Amino acid sequence: MILTVTLNAALDVTYRVPRLEPRASHRVREVAERPGGKGLNVARVLAALGHETLVTGFAGGPTGERVRELLTEVTEPGPVGDALVTTGGTTRRTVSVVEESGGPGAGATLFNEPGPQISPAEWERFLDVYGELLAGADAVALCGSLPPGVPVGAYGTLVRTARTAGVPVVLDTDGEPLRRGLAARPDVVKPNAEELAGITGSTEPLHAARLAQRRGAHAVVASLGADGLLALTPDGAWRVTPPRRMAGNPTGAGDSVVAALLSGLAEGLSWPDRLVRATALAAATVRAETAGEFDRAVYEELLPAVTVTRQRAAAASAVG
Amino acid sequence: MILTVTLNAALDVTYRVPRLEPRASHRVREVAERPGGKGLNVARVLAALGHETLVTGFAGGPTGERVRELLTEVTEPGPVGDALVTTGGTTRRTVSVVEESGGPGAGATLFNEPGPQISPAEWERFLDVYGELLAGADAVALCGSLPPGVPVGAYGTLVRTARTAGVPVVLDTDGEPLRRGLAARPDVVKPNAEELAGITGSTEPLHAARLAQRRGAHAVVASLGADGLLALTPDGAWRVTPPRRMAGNPTGAGDSVVAALLSGLAEGLSWPDRLVRATALAAATVRAETAGEFDRAVYEELLPAVTVTRQRAAAASAVG
Repeated sequence: MILTVTLNAALDVTYRVPRLEPRASHRVREVAERPGGKGLNVARVLAALGHETLVTGFAGGPTGERVRELLTEVTEPGPVGDALVTTGGTTRRTVSVVEESGGPGAGATLFNEPGPQISPAEWERFLDVYGELLAGADAVALCGSLPPGVPVGAYGTLVRTARTAGVPVVLDTDGEPLRRGLAARPDVVKPNAEELAGITGSTEPLHAARLAQRRGAHAVVASLGADGLLALTPDGAWRVTPPRRMAGNPTGAGDSVVAALLSGLAEGLSWPDRLVRATALAAATVRAETAGEFDRAVYEELLPAVTVTRQRAAAASAVG
Repeated sequence: MILTVTLNAALDVTYRVPRLEPRASHRVREVAERPGGKGLNVARVLAALGHETLVTGFAGGPTGERVRELLTEVTEPGPVGDALVTTGGTTRRTVSVVEESGGPGAGATLFNEPGPQISPAEWERFLDVYGELLAGADAVALCGSLPPGVPVGAYGTLVRTARTAGVPVVLDTDGEPLRRGLAARPDVVKPNAEELAGITGSTEPLHAARLAQRRGAHAVVASLGADGLLALTPDGAWRVTPPRRMAGNPTGAGDSVVAALLSGLAEGLSWPDRLVRATALAAATVRAETAGEFDRAVYEELLPAVTVTRQRAAAASAVG
């Protein structure tokens, strides 16, 4: 079983409008709701890849109920197991306003509600549940932002608990929670170039990845958008690029990278094979009709076409 | 008891953001939720004026549950009674994005979800409930848009049922539902200038009001924004103006006019007294801190200061 943690789960709501006009009234043509928050997205992709998957974190209020209801509807090919801890607060919504006049992915305006206030007792309860779930986990992903009330060093605690339990841990967050999580030595961190720059101060991805690795991550997989991935691992360094630049909606591409890394890790794949899977899956996510889904045909087609290039120390330094 | 009907109830959500930037991601600083839809707003104002009030219409899904939960929290000075009929669909949300950089009321961008699909069986069920509730009602207000599935002639049916039951009926809607409702001869319709123009083709309010009256309304009370009200009634015609133009948020001012007209009708006030109450209450709503609430001190202060001018036929024709 693969476990994903989403402390700040969300109900993702998408509105389609002909065009967004500030300070005007809009008739929404179509409303779509999905379970949201990075860890839930990762879990859906894992389930689609055929892995037994369990989600934990917090859910509460009517939006939390709706998230859990939508999770039970994920059944192709397997369901996502619900081990969310109930909070007295209300799960946040994210509202994404998509303009029909724009191209795919163009013109989305996002409104992110703050998360529910988590009480110290709820956090303790979560730590208990997390410890129990780790006993049956082959790998765990810690994903996204922290809701109010959760200690900023939360990911440090969760990384240490996983490592003590012998469960490989992938961390995908940013800012201070990432900085604090790094120090606890996670197996993998997956920042994008901007997040890497945010915690290291370096805008040169390879240099920034090296700094992040020095701060504690065993492996750093940096997503460089349409340019693919850059990975520094205990087995070597690689650049991985899709065969062509994909036009589409990048929402969820990063979550697909995390899902592929976990999936490859659980199956015992080599680092290059995990990175190929991650790159093909991210590109297939960009190409999908619905944000956060992936196009299986594109994924299958890209798998043999992704280029992996081992970076030697000297050559690697020339990158960027 | 005063009954208000909201066929397309809503959960009104307000987001505060520093500034709305199309195609950017916004961290919402504050989220507020209120029961919404014109009839629910009217009921809250009636309850605040001390009237026993009951709401009906449709509510369903997690948002419908939330609307009902919020209604139970209205207790000052009396509660609003919940006689909403449960639908299998989900009550719509309206999302109002307010920019903190703007002045009060400035800078609100609205997103209105479509309502739930009402089945023929649900509509029949509502008609039964409505008929039963009318037996105990002193007056009834029919407010707002129609959700999908409800016949476009719905308000015609509801007006006829109320008149047969001998219950005075106020209609506040627009477009084709208003046109069809008018033909059933409601006691009062309360369009604004734009809605009047929409159904009559005349942009001159007095002329348009006369046309609306000819089409079936016993009385037409047209709201002219900061200029007050224009009323054509069986007892005469009046122009009513607040003592000064009010700066503030006009959201809910029209609902306060409906509440005041119902309240005055239930108390047996004369037409001029009802119109004074409506004008003072609308102005006090514009001045309130929270959209849709009213400022009681402003209301009390304005009541004796509102100007009512009887319009003679000839003089009336010169207006506009």
